[in-house]
Amino acid sequence: MPRSLILSRRDLEFLLYEWLDVAALTRHERFAPHSRETFDAVLDLSESIATEEFAPLNRAADQHEPEIGPDGAVVLLPEIEKALGAYEAAGLRAATFDHRFGGQQLPITVHQAASCYFQAASCGLFAYAFLSIGNANLIVAHGSPEQIARYAQPVIDGRFYGTMCLSEPHAGSSLSDITTRAVRQEDGTYRLFGTKMWISAGDHELGENIVHLVLARVEGAPAGVKGISLFIVPKYLLEADGDPGERNDVALVGLNHKMGFRGTTNALLNFGEGLARPGDRPGAIGHLVGQENNGLRYMFHMMNEARISVGAGAVALGYTGYLHSLEYARTRTQGRPVNDKDPSSAPVPIIDHPDVRRMLLAQKSYAEGGLALVLYCAHVVDTEQVTTDAREKQRLHTLLEVLTPIAKSWPSQWCVAANDLAIQVHGGAGYTRDYPVEQFYRDNRLNSIHEGTHGIQALDLLGRKVTMDHGAGLAVLVDTMRATITRASPALRGQADTLAAAVDRLVAVTADLWRDRDSAAALANATVYLEAAGHVVLAWIWLEQLLVADGRSGAFYDGKRAAGQYFYRFELPTVNWRFDLLAGRDRTTLDLDPAVL
Amino acid sequence: MPRSLILSRRDLEFLLYEWLDVAALTRHERFAPHSRETFDAVLDLSESIATEEFAPLNRAADQHEPEIGPDGAVVLLPEIEKALGAYEAAGLRAATFDHRFGGQQLPITVHQAASCYFQAASCGLFAYAFLSIGNANLIVAHGSPEQIARYAQPVIDGRFYGTMCLSEPHAGSSLSDITTRAVRQEDGTYRLFGTKMWISAGDHELGENIVHLVLARVEGAPAGVKGISLFIVPKYLLEADGDPGERNDVALVGLNHKMGFRGTTNALLNFGEGLARPGDRPGAIGHLVGQENNGLRYMFHMMNEARISVGAGAVALGYTGYLHSLEYARTRTQGRPVNDKDPSSAPVPIIDHPDVRRMLLAQKSYAEGGLALVLYCAHVVDTEQVTTDAREKQRLHTLLEVLTPIAKSWPSQWCVAANDLAIQVHGGAGYTRDYPVEQFYRDNRLNSIHEGTHGIQALDLLGRKVTMDHGAGLAVLVDTMRATITRASPALRGQADTLAAAVDRLVAVTADLWRDRDSAAALANATVYLEAAGHVVLAWIWLEQLLVADGRSGAFYDGKRAAGQYFYRFELPTVNWRFDLLAGRDRTTLDLDPAVL
Repeated sequence: MPRSLILSRRDLEFLLYEWLDVAALTRHERFAPHSRETFDAVLDLSESIATEEFAPLNRAADQHEPEIGPDGAVVLLPEIEKALGAYEAAGLRAATFDHRFGGQQLPITVHQAASCYFQAASCGLFAYAFLSIGNANLIVAHGSPEQIARYAQPVIDGRFYGTMCLSEPHAGSSLSDITTRAVRQEDGTYRLFGTKMWISAGDHELGENIVHLVLARVEGAPAGVKGISLFIVPKYLLEADGDPGERNDVALVGLNHKMGFRGTTNALLNFGEGLARPGDRPGAIGHLVGQENNGLRYMFHMMNEARISVGAGAVALGYTGYLHSLEYARTRTQGRPVNDKDPSSAPVPIIDHPDVRRMLLAQKSYAEGGLALVLYCAHVVDTEQVTTDAREKQRLHTLLEVLTPIAKSWPSQWCVAANDLAIQVHGGAGYTRDYPVEQFYRDNRLNSIHEGTHGIQALDLLGRKVTMDHGAGLAVLVDTMRATITRASPALRGQADTLAAAVDRLVAVTADLWRDRDSAAALANATVYLEAAGHVVLAWIWLEQLLVADGRSGAFYDGKRAAGQYFYRFELPTVNWRFDLLAGRDRTTLDLDPAVL
Repeated sequence: MPRSLILSRRDLEFLLYEWLDVAALTRHERFAPHSRETFDAVLDLSESIATEEFAPLNRAADQHEPEIGPDGAVVLLPEIEKALGAYEAAGLRAATFDHRFGGQQLPITVHQAASCYFQAASCGLFAYAFLSIGNANLIVAHGSPEQIARYAQPVIDGRFYGTMCLSEPHAGSSLSDITTRAVRQEDGTYRLFGTKMWISAGDHELGENIVHLVLARVEGAPAGVKGISLFIVPKYLLEADGDPGERNDVALVGLNHKMGFRGTTNALLNFGEGLARPGDRPGAIGHLVGQENNGLRYMFHMMNEARISVGAGAVALGYTGYLHSLEYARTRTQGRPVNDKDPSSAPVPIIDHPDVRRMLLAQKSYAEGGLALVLYCAHVVDTEQVTTDAREKQRLHTLLEVLTPIAKSWPSQWCVAANDLAIQVHGGAGYTRDYPVEQFYRDNRLNSIHEGTHGIQALDLLGRKVTMDHGAGLAVLVDTMRATITRASPALRGQADTLAAAVDRLVAVTADLWRDRDSAAALANATVYLEAAGHVVLAWIWLEQLLVADGRSGAFYDGKRAAGQYFYRFELPTVNWRFDLLAGRDRTTLDLDPAVL
């Protein structure tokens, strides 16, 4: 079989088995039916379906974006349903759910690795599945048994699809300002009225129904985020037997036409505009999840999962772009080494030029580092789930909380940079639609916007996560990184010392920023902080990988060492100016009079 | 009149009149008929035509890219000819040419500023005009009087269009490997046979004819760049009276479908495939420019001009993206200041958030800095032309040589970064095709590829320009920067000292890199050097602007100070890790075994 240009199976095995030792999870009851063999089978199946069903559709889905047909229904490429059907038929949508829901109780770590095949092969297509899984997870976690049976189960089974409806035209990053209203009905249901924007997979004809999870305010609720509730609003109301029946009052107003990620419908939806009139009245019928006014907390259950998956999606695109440009660099010949002055000598593969190697090493360090980070986070989720020790469970929970904004934002920033380099390695060819890298670049650009922008992640990290529980957030992360540093072998002492200094700096700068509890001053350069912290975390992730590779010979391990060396020499030093700026509590942006711009 | 979102006229006036004092050029005979009034008239006219004829077409030209019609001819949006016609009718195509050619002898500096309006309004459309001007400039500089009359004059007049045909499918960055053959004919003409790739404006039905400037090898020529000759190859052969007649043997093989810059046809052309048979024989008839085997030298006359214009085009897109995102940030409301915890307070314009200001200041520093740099370069061209002192002429020539790779590459890198931030300021809206910033981002991505990739510019700077004439290249640049530093007022002493240290470092590192004349080792990290040198040069350009603003009050000058402060605090410090890496003569990329990737 030719080497895949989607993902490196060898690297996945290194990360899953040699580093994270996911096989050890099977010692816990939840995962006991599994083994390395079942994990490998999932990866085999994923690679094969992604390669055969998803990747061939990726360009077509970009060229033929969703449109609204004459009957008002969304028209997708018909092959999309077949590809998603193959994913479901293989049991991949249900894979991580409990046996009681027909799932396989597959560790999230393995599922995340498998998902990366699909995200790399066609992120636009995979979004339909990924959003559905997150949707069902939320209902399973916070819904009533009846809601789970009627709404989550058909999503798990692949019969229904799911969405998350947060943003409104005037309220995206600031969810406290949403105005969609929910009116209590005598039968215990609610009627929703309002407009939701940027709804991925918001409308389509895939499956039998769409289960929208909608944030809204119950009349009389407190202002701000403390007055937001969460509702299940199906596109088609369910009959008593659970089959979809009458159309709910949810109307497709329009589709967004994006630069990339065109395989995924992105919709503007009106709830309660009266187009459909269930019970002969306008208003979209919704079912409250959990308690009123707790909606944002429940939604963050899905959001945090979504944020790590967004990071994973960014990684997957960075990874496949790297592999495509590596292949191109090995086969495309051009020019000669700079000290070969003989014009009659044969041109060399461009991989022989140091600058091309720089662009490949950079991509490798971003993509492999990012993949390791998101799998590490997934592994924390699995470990937390099976850990019985309460303290350790709390530690893992806190660690995941503090890592989440980095796992979301770092790949969204640097794996687009990887795609940018993949284009550059291809030269003019990479700028044409004859090669896939330009699409990766366009698709990946979304990832620093949706599910919380880059700036929102920065505020989350510096404003909430590192300070949570009186600083426990940062402490847990720092302790984890220092434990790795302690394990460094003599061969890795130099890198470990460099990282130790960066970690010390992170601790000192965080304290500096918060020393007088002036949140405006502390958070003025939150993005600079996020980017510095992100590079420190990735240097730690690289040291983790180098520790596993240490003492092992062969091209694969040499490749890890090369990418790790690149990261420590070309990337980690960029944290210094950022820490200097932060330590100086720079007020350039804070004090600016916007009238002078 | 509402504030233009294309370019800032106020900034152009600052740069042209307050800083570069282009009005002083009119003291020289060449520019004597001009005055600030005629310059302003050119800017007025350009802003008006760009706003009314170019900008409204920009999205349509992106959506309806050139295609090959049933008769084999290229089909463009019909409005494109009208827009280009307005540009020509205003005398802008001929503006910089000598009076004897019907030109206005307009300074290049003013023309470059005017061109930025068109590049910002629709770079894809403007490319047709810009390539034609470069083409005619080359023929005027190196062609025979007859060639000038028959080929350059109709291009200047707007009757013909021009191209430059360098790349071939197997040879882009490495021009020494081109294989297009030129066969001498008894009548003094040549017949050309070969394939040219990536030819912008390579075929279309605009105007009466296309004048291709084609690099080819005369049979028996030496290998490598020393055996390349330059030919004029018209699409239609000229009759004795200069009118286009018989079709030459130049065939359109196909069009490239690009991620952006779709307004400009990009063609694969076959010369001499026998589709047309002038004189009843296959072979594209070409006319030698100058002497055989000197073709690359002549072409670089056009290339250097093209490289600065590419930089200007990148700047223009960065600039208009900045203005669009600034407008959005002033009008879009979202969220509250971090220390306002009252959810019932009104949302603020997003420009009130420090992170949005950071993104605006970054764009402003890139776009205004880049514009200043390319206008500075254009001003060097003008000054060199009118200078009679031979030493000063040589100094200016050398300064332009060393600045050219930076003027090309720096905006191509950082003004795409500006467009990336313009998208981010818009959030999800910026990712849709309802707003123009996503197109700016896609269009601008080409600029670090064409006319010599980023990596080629790096080799040019470190391998040729700073070392030329025994180091005179770097010395001229450094002396120029130090002269500015010397002029710094007390208020600017801090920034001047910071810059002085960076300049010293640049000198020391350059010497380090070349100390043992090992070009492979010296050039291994040429791109890192290019990027460090670029930021040093831009810090100098910012200090130049700050010196002009010094002591002047008002929002405009405060804006310059804010952007300059941003550049010195957030940007210039990034040179340090680059210089450290270079000083350490890092061999990561050089020593890498590509098999481990």
